[in-house]
Amino acid sequence: MREELRKVAEDIQIFIANDSFPTTIEPAYLRRAVIDYPLRGGKRLRPALVLWTCGLLGGDPAKALAAAAAVEIYHNWTLVHDDIIDNDDFRRGQPSTHCALNQYAATMLPTAQKEFGRNFAILTGDIQQGWAAAMLLKSVECGVSPAVVLAMSRRMHEQLNRELISGEALDVEYSERDIKTITAAEVEKMLYLKTGALLRFCVEVGATIALDDPTYSDSRLKKLALFAANAGVAFQLRDDWLGIFGDAKKLGKPVGADLAEKKPTIMLLKALELLPPHGKAELLALLGKPETESSVARARELLCSSGAEDFVIRRAVELTEQAREHLNSFPDNHYRKLLNELLEYLTERNV
Amino acid sequence: MREELRKVAEDIQIFIANDSFPTTIEPAYLRRAVIDYPLRGGKRLRPALVLWTCGLLGGDPAKALAAAAAVEIYHNWTLVHDDIIDNDDFRRGQPSTHCALNQYAATMLPTAQKEFGRNFAILTGDIQQGWAAAMLLKSVECGVSPAVVLAMSRRMHEQLNRELISGEALDVEYSERDIKTITAAEVEKMLYLKTGALLRFCVEVGATIALDDPTYSDSRLKKLALFAANAGVAFQLRDDWLGIFGDAKKLGKPVGADLAEKKPTIMLLKALELLPPHGKAELLALLGKPETESSVARARELLCSSGAEDFVIRRAVELTEQAREHLNSFPDNHYRKLLNELLEYLTERNV
Repeated sequence: MREELRKVAEDIQIFIANDSFPTTIEPAYLRRAVIDYPLRGGKRLRPALVLWTCGLLGGDPAKALAAAAAVEIYHNWTLVHDDIIDNDDFRRGQPSTHCALNQYAATMLPTAQKEFGRNFAILTGDIQQGWAAAMLLKSVECGVSPAVVLAMSRRMHEQLNRELISGEALDVEYSERDIKTITAAEVEKMLYLKTGALLRFCVEVGATIALDDPTYSDSRLKKLALFAANAGVAFQLRDDWLGIFGDAKKLGKPVGADLAEKKPTIMLLKALELLPPHGKAELLALLGKPETESSVARARELLCSSGAEDFVIRRAVELTEQAREHLNSFPDNHYRKLLNELLEYLTERNV
Repeated sequence: MREELRKVAEDIQIFIANDSFPTTIEPAYLRRAVIDYPLRGGKRLRPALVLWTCGLLGGDPAKALAAAAAVEIYHNWTLVHDDIIDNDDFRRGQPSTHCALNQYAATMLPTAQKEFGRNFAILTGDIQQGWAAAMLLKSVECGVSPAVVLAMSRRMHEQLNRELISGEALDVEYSERDIKTITAAEVEKMLYLKTGALLRFCVEVGATIALDDPTYSDSRLKKLALFAANAGVAFQLRDDWLGIFGDAKKLGKPVGADLAEKKPTIMLLKALELLPPHGKAELLALLGKPETESSVARARELLCSSGAEDFVIRRAVELTEQAREHLNSFPDNHYRKLLNELLEYLTERNV
């Protein structure tokens, strides 16, 4: 699977790099910002989902290449705007878009106001959303029928857009709301919207191209949607677990930042629900302060002894099994094997 | 024309208000923000351009209704993001999206950070761009052929998006660059990108629906594109003129703000080019300070005596005549009359 995933990443990199869309963007630093994230590499898990689901249903993955590039660009525009909203300075080890633009301004446009990076990063994401839409429409040039391209595009703009952005909005809101007013069910729905919705779009696109069916009504799509949605939420639960219990060395970043940010993860909410009053008070007191080795160690003890860690691990396993069941209801082939390994990779990773 | 324009505004208002797109957006205040600008009314000049151009070429304007609503929503998402970038607190006499969201947070989410309004306004525009794309795709439900819908959508994402956002980017950049390094030709190109590109998209969409031709190669499209592009630039030149020479009472806002903001308009650049050294120095000294009655009066004198005012008026008239010539190369009908009156309205307005 790793080898095939590397091949997908290579193909997508070339496909995006060769696309003519960015060429007429002005000024030049805006054009460079637009191609920056999409060409920074990464594992290209979403394109792989598109291509392999197409193969799972007997389609030719080559027909889905433009669609696979489109979901990757779509993912990237949301990252550019998320990084502004979350004030993140880095993305994949390099400056985030608004930071890179500010660095440009510092040397090239010394009179620019301090919001320069933010303003041009807003415009960067805006263009990238258009680029993703244009790329999906280019599927006609890969041999996808116009009716199917229309159907996929409607799905992108009518469902994916609203779900994904609603997910980001709820994520921002939860981090600003009193943690005691948020439920685990609300957070799990947000995790679906923020991550599962795009994975679902990926498998539906791959399947729709394979089936050459613009109706989006085939029963296999529903199974694939559940596969992707469950895998997405399980992936996020794992992410939250790694954020506290992960190995800082392997992750290449400090653990415990979620505690310092008072991030309302399901694990934290569950612990606050399960702990006795003094334990709850102790955990609440650990939140919102810069994390130290001892504060993280104590939080781990509380999350573990309360049963919250176990609850989240069990929920992730449950969702993963459900995802696997949906996937394995399809006849076995090379692509089903790849998707099974991808599911394992997503939900059992240590980094 | 005024009566027919009112009818267009009414139809568009109802069409947008009845669209189901926003219903599933969460949280509710984000949903309200998404429908806010599109339902604030306004003259709906762009939808009128779509519908009337469709009629000009013998098409049924009813078939272009979804496309007309789409360009209006497209226009509005760019306004939401522009208002963040330009730090504008008002839009059509009401709080801009980021201000309205900040007001909501002040009463309903007192713990929200100060960037709340900005962050949710970014997401608001992001959803609206998707809504515009979805609305254009809905043209199939108005009876437009799938091939034409695909062609129009590609044009929206491949050309309109890049041109319009490049225009906004250049506008922002010019206001941050040393005014002496900017040429009038650069600014005129920016005016085309920022305003003309969307008007051009409007007439091309109306014509493409009327002609039922997905190739975008009919020679009539080129004439209409020139009509719209020239009208757009003339409209902006008029706007810049009104910003200095307009009647504050009629405009309902102070004149001279462009001077205080040091906005590099063509009129200002031309004056700096034409004035003798001491006049140039005097004009430069008037820039970037809060405008007063006497500073505006003196700037008017300098802009007038230098010939810069006359230059801009003549250029606007020239572009308007070119636009009219292109329009009148089409056979006369009811819609050609309406479009002629719309052109007059755009380029000779006093408010």
